[in-house]
Parts: sequence; C-alpha cells; structure tokens
Amino acid sequence: MTVEPGKIDEHPPDLSIRAIRGLPEIRPGDDLAGMLADATTYEDHDVLVVTQKVVSKAEGRLVDIDFDDPRGHKAIVEDESVRILRRRGDLIISETEHGFVCANAGIDLSNVEAGQAALLPVDSDRSARRIRDVVRARTGAEIGVIISDTFGRPWRRGVTDVAIGSAGIGPILDLRGHPDALGREMQVTEVAIVDELAAAAELAMGKSAGIPAAVVRGAPAEWFRSGGVVDEIVRSPSEDLFR
Amino acid sequence: MTVEPGKIDEHPPDLSIRAIRGLPEIRPGDDLAGMLADATTYEDHDVLVVTQKVVSKAEGRLVDIDFDDPRGHKAIVEDESVRILRRRGDLIISETEHGFVCANAGIDLSNVEAGQAALLPVDSDRSARRIRDVVRARTGAEIGVIISDTFGRPWRRGVTDVAIGSAGIGPILDLRGHPDALGREMQVTEVAIVDELAAAAELAMGKSAGIPAAVVRGAPAEWFRSGGVVDEIVRSPSEDLFR
Repeated sequence: MTVEPGKIDEHPPDLSIRAIRGLPEIRPGDDLAGMLADATTYEDHDVLVVTQKVVSKAEGRLVDIDFDDPRGHKAIVEDESVRILRRRGDLIISETEHGFVCANAGIDLSNVEAGQAALLPVDSDRSARRIRDVVRARTGAEIGVIISDTFGRPWRRGVTDVAIGSAGIGPILDLRGHPDALGREMQVTEVAIVDELAAAAELAMGKSAGIPAAVVRGAPAEWFRSGGVVDEIVRSPSEDLFR
Repeated sequence: MTVEPGKIDEHPPDLSIRAIRGLPEIRPGDDLAGMLADATTYEDHDVLVVTQKVVSKAEGRLVDIDFDDPRGHKAIVEDESVRILRRRGDLIISETEHGFVCANAGIDLSNVEAGQAALLPVDSDRSARRIRDVVRARTGAEIGVIISDTFGRPWRRGVTDVAIGSAGIGPILDLRGHPDALGREMQVTEVAIVDELAAAAELAMGKSAGIPAAVVRGAPAEWFRSGGVVDEIVRSPSEDLFR
C-alpha cells in the first residue's frame, strides 16, 4: 500500500526542545528561579526542565570533600543514604531520604568547583514548586517544572536523565481504562511522563556545555495538574521486587 | 544578575519531535520499512523511532494466546525467557534471549488483535538496520533508526520507552575524558542517548492513538555511527549488581 508522501510535514512538530543558554555559573543564594523566569519567554503548558546541579548550588547544598580521601566521599554518601543496596569498589547503590535509589546517593562531583560536591535538594518537589511559582508571578504563564538528575539503571548500560522533582505537571499519566487503538483496554497503564521529559531535555542540554535548563513546548493540556515525584514515582519497598 | 529577555527565542529549537500519522494497521508481511520511507521526508541525521509492536507485526512475530487460560500466557513468557528474575502473581520479570530484562519477556497484548500477542523481534538491531537501509535507498537520507519498547523499572513507578534496537546512531554517547563546563573530567561518562530518544519520541506518539513512529530532528552529527543496542546497552551479568 502507498502512503501519501510528505504527509507529516503538513503539521508542525508535536514537541520542540530548546536549551536555555547564557545563564551564568550559579552560586549559593542566587535567585535561580528569577534568572530562569527572565531567561526566556514562556507559554502556558511549557515544561521547564532544570538540572539538579544548579538547583543544589542555588540552594547551597554543597559540601567540602577531600578527593584524596576515599573515606571522606564514602562517609558523605552514607550520611545521605537511608539504606545501602549494593557496594562494588567505590560505587555505592543506596536509597536516599526521598526514596530515590541511585549511585552514591545522587552526590555529584562534575560541574562543581574543585573540593566540593553537590548533594540532592532537600525537597526537590518543593524546589520545582518554587520555580513554577516565580515563573508564574513574573510571566503569567502556567508551566510545568521538572528537576532532573542523571541516574544509572540495572540491566542496561549508560545513564539517562530522570525527574527527581516536579510541579504543575502530573508525574504519571494514568491510562488505566483507556482503550487502545483497537478498542481493547490498555495493558500498559501508567506512563512516567516526567522521566521521559527529563530524558528529552537532556538530549538538548548535553553534559559538557554547562547548559542547566531546557524548555519543552507542545505538551498536551491534560498533562498539567498538581502532584510531585516523591509521592507518585517513588515505589514503596512493599511493592518493589528489587529492594 | 539580569539575563537578556528573549535570549533563547533567538535560536531555533535544538530538537523537534514529529509523530508519523496516517499509517494503516500493520499486518504480517507488510513492507513497514517502505511505508515509513514513503510516509514523510527525511533529512540527514534525523532519528526515526519505531515502536516494537509494528515491527513485530510486520515481521509476523505474533502468537495465538488463550486469555482465559493463564497457563497459556505463562508458558509463552517462559518460552521467550532465558532466565526468570522475579515472579509476583501473574507478573514475571525475566531476561530475554537478547539480554533485555523486562516484564513478561516483552510480550505485548495491547494494540494487538484479540487472541494474539506480539513477541519481540528476533534481532531488533537487525530490524532497525533494515529500516535504515530502505530509507536510505529510497530517500538518500542518512538517518538513525531506533526500535522502541515500553519497559517498567525497579524503584520507580510508571513505564518509559527505551531502545531495544538501533542502527546508524551510537547507542551510547561516550564522554569519558571530556572536560565538564568547569574543565574537570566528567564523572558521568556514558549517556544512553538511544533510550533518551525513545523516551522523547514516546511523548509525541502516546499509547492510545495508534501512532507507531516519530521523527526526532536536530541531533548532532557526532551521534551517528554504527553500533547496536544489544552489544552496547545490554549489561553483562558479570557487571550487573541486580541479577
């Protein structure tokens, strides 16, 4: 069968992703939310994805660390963990107070001044709400905000960005009860759209260019609601088969 | 400090994602690659993301299944698995012959005709190469192709799309030895860009509209090289802490 050529070029892209360039190096106490609000124009239903590192820096979540002393690094990781799942060499897979399972309790050494490490925000959903509120107050736009971080995964090599905080956008898109294209009830029912948005934004930001945020435009209105990552994405130990 | 307003609006989006609409229901033996080649125009360095389900259908990877008999479903899952990791109720987390760890060996019941289930492609990297070759032959464009599927993850609720096959685009972007924005060597070194691209494409395709493919435009030229998902993304049991 033949499909009409050029068909998809008749409609605009469903989504676009634009990195926010030109922000200065962020330091403790900086008004990151205000800088992000001023850095571009926003439309309703834009999704602003901000990397954990600049949020942690602005919130002063930095600790001194002696890189010549592996015990120092280990002590900080253990301090930021509520449960250690695995150890191999210097690598610790642990659960943070938020409930995130990740390497080294999410403590980050890259793109941080020498001698310092960045801890995760204390409450990354609250960090997202603050940015959302400031953008709304300054621009009038009702946007979603995602705080992203870079996690490894079991079974698959390579890291991807996921959401560790969100505001204004529902972390999980619940399709339970929706029919599929053939009219049958969906088997796959709960899509972690904030994780997919964090991954999409990472593609535009990269890791070595110092770009700390990106705007995803084109998300459907029905994705926007209240709810946070810690409540909706973190799987409770009782329903988790791998803890 | 003040950032010049409107700064990011001066440059075009870094990435855009466009769903491919208008494809018919795919059946065993259909020339899916040809249909995808004809369905739109391509530019060099576009990434075409195609869902596993239509690839499996076109390749005839369908089996009859009696939904009233849970033993029938279980037998098919076990048949498609080389190792069972966990069981809970009807859910089986297992490793497929490709090395993917996922629920029910990746066997899919939604958007498939009643009474049938779709198995994973036998060699999903080869499936991607075939589509890449046909698009190149018909359009002249050098594109990347990703076969995507929807997987759950431990520790986090909700599913996301990941890559189960690829061609023309390097599954892992290796940043080892690259300096970060502050000139220090990167801590995070290997980014699973094909998984992030699969996730980004899912956002434009959705799960209930019957859209089986999307084109991501704007990927940097250096992402394009040979290599497949099974070789580069599947983590060997010896380096895996959770198998």
